[in-house]
Amino acid sequence: MLEESVRRAIRVDKDRLMRRLDALAECGARDDGGCNRLAFTDADKQGRDRVIGWMRELGLTVEIDAIGNAVAIRAGATDGPPVMCGSHIDTVRTGGRYDGNLGVLAGLEVVETLNDAGLTTRRPLAVAFFSNEEGARAAPDMMGSLVYVGGLALTQALDAVAIDGARVGDELERIGYRGEASVPGPVPHAFVELHIEQGPILEAEGIQLGAVTGVQGISWTEVTVSGQANHAGTTPMSYRHDAGYAAAETTSFVRRLTREMGGAQVGTVGAINLDPNLVNVVARKAVFTVDLRNTDEALLKKAEARLHEHLDAIAEAEGVTISTRTLARFEPVSFDRRIIELVADTARSLGRTVKELPAGAGHDAQMLARVCPSGMVFTPSAKGISHNPREHTDPEDLEAGANTLLQVLLALTESDEIPTRQASP
Amino acid sequence: MLEESVRRAIRVDKDRLMRRLDALAECGARDDGGCNRLAFTDADKQGRDRVIGWMRELGLTVEIDAIGNAVAIRAGATDGPPVMCGSHIDTVRTGGRYDGNLGVLAGLEVVETLNDAGLTTRRPLAVAFFSNEEGARAAPDMMGSLVYVGGLALTQALDAVAIDGARVGDELERIGYRGEASVPGPVPHAFVELHIEQGPILEAEGIQLGAVTGVQGISWTEVTVSGQANHAGTTPMSYRHDAGYAAAETTSFVRRLTREMGGAQVGTVGAINLDPNLVNVVARKAVFTVDLRNTDEALLKKAEARLHEHLDAIAEAEGVTISTRTLARFEPVSFDRRIIELVADTARSLGRTVKELPAGAGHDAQMLARVCPSGMVFTPSAKGISHNPREHTDPEDLEAGANTLLQVLLALTESDEIPTRQASP
Repeated sequence: MLEESVRRAIRVDKDRLMRRLDALAECGARDDGGCNRLAFTDADKQGRDRVIGWMRELGLTVEIDAIGNAVAIRAGATDGPPVMCGSHIDTVRTGGRYDGNLGVLAGLEVVETLNDAGLTTRRPLAVAFFSNEEGARAAPDMMGSLVYVGGLALTQALDAVAIDGARVGDELERIGYRGEASVPGPVPHAFVELHIEQGPILEAEGIQLGAVTGVQGISWTEVTVSGQANHAGTTPMSYRHDAGYAAAETTSFVRRLTREMGGAQVGTVGAINLDPNLVNVVARKAVFTVDLRNTDEALLKKAEARLHEHLDAIAEAEGVTISTRTLARFEPVSFDRRIIELVADTARSLGRTVKELPAGAGHDAQMLARVCPSGMVFTPSAKGISHNPREHTDPEDLEAGANTLLQVLLALTESDEIPTRQASP
Repeated sequence: MLEESVRRAIRVDKDRLMRRLDALAECGARDDGGCNRLAFTDADKQGRDRVIGWMRELGLTVEIDAIGNAVAIRAGATDGPPVMCGSHIDTVRTGGRYDGNLGVLAGLEVVETLNDAGLTTRRPLAVAFFSNEEGARAAPDMMGSLVYVGGLALTQALDAVAIDGARVGDELERIGYRGEASVPGPVPHAFVELHIEQGPILEAEGIQLGAVTGVQGISWTEVTVSGQANHAGTTPMSYRHDAGYAAAETTSFVRRLTREMGGAQVGTVGAINLDPNLVNVVARKAVFTVDLRNTDEALLKKAEARLHEHLDAIAEAEGVTISTRTLARFEPVSFDRRIIELVADTARSLGRTVKELPAGAGHDAQMLARVCPSGMVFTPSAKGISHNPREHTDPEDLEAGANTLLQVLLALTESDEIPTRQASP
C-alpha cells in the first residue's frame, strides 16, 4: 500500500497529456482542427494502433475483446479485479479533440505518472477504451461497453449495419480489431470515467470540476400528425386541419412543460418535417421528434404522460390524427454515492471548486454502472460546445481533471472505501 | 339590341360544356384523372391548339399576342371594346380538370349558344385565355394577364426563367405561341371570369354560386431565425437559443393573430426547415414562411405589423436573431360593385342561392380589374379541394355557373349598366 503522503503529492504531467491528445487528434484529422474518427473506419484503426502502441510502451498488458474493446492492465501488489478508468476514442463525423479521448489518454497519463514515480498500487489498475461509443456510424451508441457488461449480445452487435451499409463484424475484422478476449468482460472493482461536460453549466457557473451524479433518462418520441392539405388563401381558419400547427403547438407545449416541471426536466423538438412544406399550402402531414430527459424516472414518466395528454387534446382541437413511435427509451442511471463523494472531495483537496451534476449525454460509465460501482469526473466545456471541431477545454482544466482522476483511482486502488467484492457463493 | 324576354330565356348546353371540359382534360392527362399542363410545355401547346380550333370552328376572330394570350372576338351589332370573359388553360403539375379551363370553355359555350340562337349582341363579345396564370413553371403567376394590362414589361416576362431552366420567350417560340398582337392589349368594356371557388365555403354553407367581391391582399414573408445548436441532453433550458422554438412560437402566434383579428384574416405557416434537424440537437437555424391574407389593406398591414412585433419579442426572449424577407406582396383588389351585384342578381334570377365572398387565390380577373370594370362568378368546389386531381364540381353547378356567365355577359353587352367608356381627351 502506498504511503498516503506520497500518494497525495503525485501529479500528472500536463504537457505530456496535451502531446498525446494532439497526437491522437492527427488520426482522422479534419481541416478545421476537429476529428472524424467514426467507429471501425481506417481512421479509427489508426487511432487504436496509436493508443495501443502507447499502452504497450507503458508496459501494460493489452487485451482486445470480440467487439474490439481494449483493456490495458497495470499489475498491482495484489491480484483481483482492477480499478478501471477509460472511455472511448471514436468520434462523430464532426468531432472535436477531447470528448472520449480525454478519459483514455488521462488514464495513460496516470499510468506513466505512476511508472515515473516507481509506484505499485495495491489493486491492479486498468485503462480501457470501448468500441463505438458514439453510435454515429452504427446503432446503438455505447455499443462496446454495452456488450462488455452483457447488455447486448455479441452476435447482435456484430450484425449491426452501419449507415454506409457495412456490417460491424466485417468492419471490425477488416481493421484487425476483432480480438480474442471474450465478452461479457471481467467485472472491474470500480470504474471511473473522466470526460468533458459537453454542456455549459460548469463554465457558466465558474465551477472547475464536476462530480457526476448519474445520467439522465432519455425518452425519444417520433410524432406523426395527419391533417388535410388546403389552400392557404381560400380556406377559412375554422375549416383547417393543419398538421404544421399541431407540430408547432406541441413544440411550444414542450417548452411550457419544462418550465412547469422545472428541476432537471429538459425537452427539445429538434426535427420537424412538413408535407408538402410550401408557403401557400396548409400542411397535410407533420413528422417531428420530442426528446425528453430527466434524472428521475418517475418525473420522466410524468413528462411522457403529459406529452401524450397534450397530443390527444391538440388532435381533438385541430381535427387531426396523431400517432407516436418510441425511438429510444433509457431509464436514468445513478452513479455510486461513494464515488460521487470521492470525486467531489478529491477535487476540493486539489483546490478546485466542484459541483455535483447529472450527465445529459450517454457515457460508457453508465453501462459499467450496471456491474460495478462507477462514477465520472467532468471538466468544463467552453460554451458547452461539443461534437464540433470548436470543442474546447483549457489545458489547466484538463490537467486538474487528470489529477482528480489520478487521486480518485489511487484512493480506490489503495483504500477499502469500496470493499473488495466477495466471490459469489 | 336583343329582346329582353328572348335574352333571359337563353340557356347553355350542359353536355356540350362537359364534352369540351373532358376533351381539354385529355391534353396533358395524368393517370389519376388530373391534368399536368404546365405553361409553355408540349401539353400546353396541345391544349392551346385544341381550344383555338374550337374558337375558329365557332367563327371567332382569334388574335395571339406577344406573350401568348389568345383573344377570340365575336362581332357585335356595334363596334367598340368587347365585353370579355375568360381565364387560363395552364395547370399546376398535379392539376384538376376545372380550375381555369371552366372559365374559358364556358365562354365558348356562351358563344355557341348565341350562334345556335342566331343572336347578335349589341357590343362585341370576347373569350380570352391568358398565358401562365399558375406560375407553377415560371414566376410570376398571372403572367399573361399582367402583361396584357401593362403591369409587367414584355421583355421581363419573356426573359423569365422556368424552374427547369428554360427561358419563357424561347419556350413560347418553340410551341409556336409568340403571337403578333401587341401588348398591352386592347382594354375591354368589362371583364367577367367564371371559376371554381377552390375553397370550401360555398359547399359547406350549401350555397350554389358565389358573387366574388374581390381578391385578398397577399403578404408572404420568409423568416430566418439564427439561434445556437446545442446538445438536447446537456443544455439546461435557460441556456438555450432555440431557433426551432422561435419558429414554433411564431406559428402558434399566427393562429392567435387570425383568431384575434377575425373577419377575413387568414394566416398560414406552411413551410418550416430546421438545421441541423436532428432529434437530439437544439436547432441552430430555422427558415419558415408566413402567408397572411386579408381583403382589407389596412388590416393586412396591421397583421404584418403585429407579426413583426411578435418576431422582435421572441428574438429578445429567446436570445436569437431574426431576419425577414418579403417573398410576395399584393394589395387587395376590389371588383366593380355593379358587376358584383349583377352576378348576384343574375344567379338569384336563375333560381340559385348566392353569396358574396372574396377570392382567396389570385385570378386573371384581378389584373383586368386594373383597366376595366371586372368581376367573377364562383361555382362550389367539393371539399374545397383544388390544384389536385381530385378537384371536383358537380355538372349541375358548372351548368349554373355557365348560365350565370351567359346572362351576365348579355346584360353587359346589351345594357348601359356599365356605360360606354369615353375616349381619352
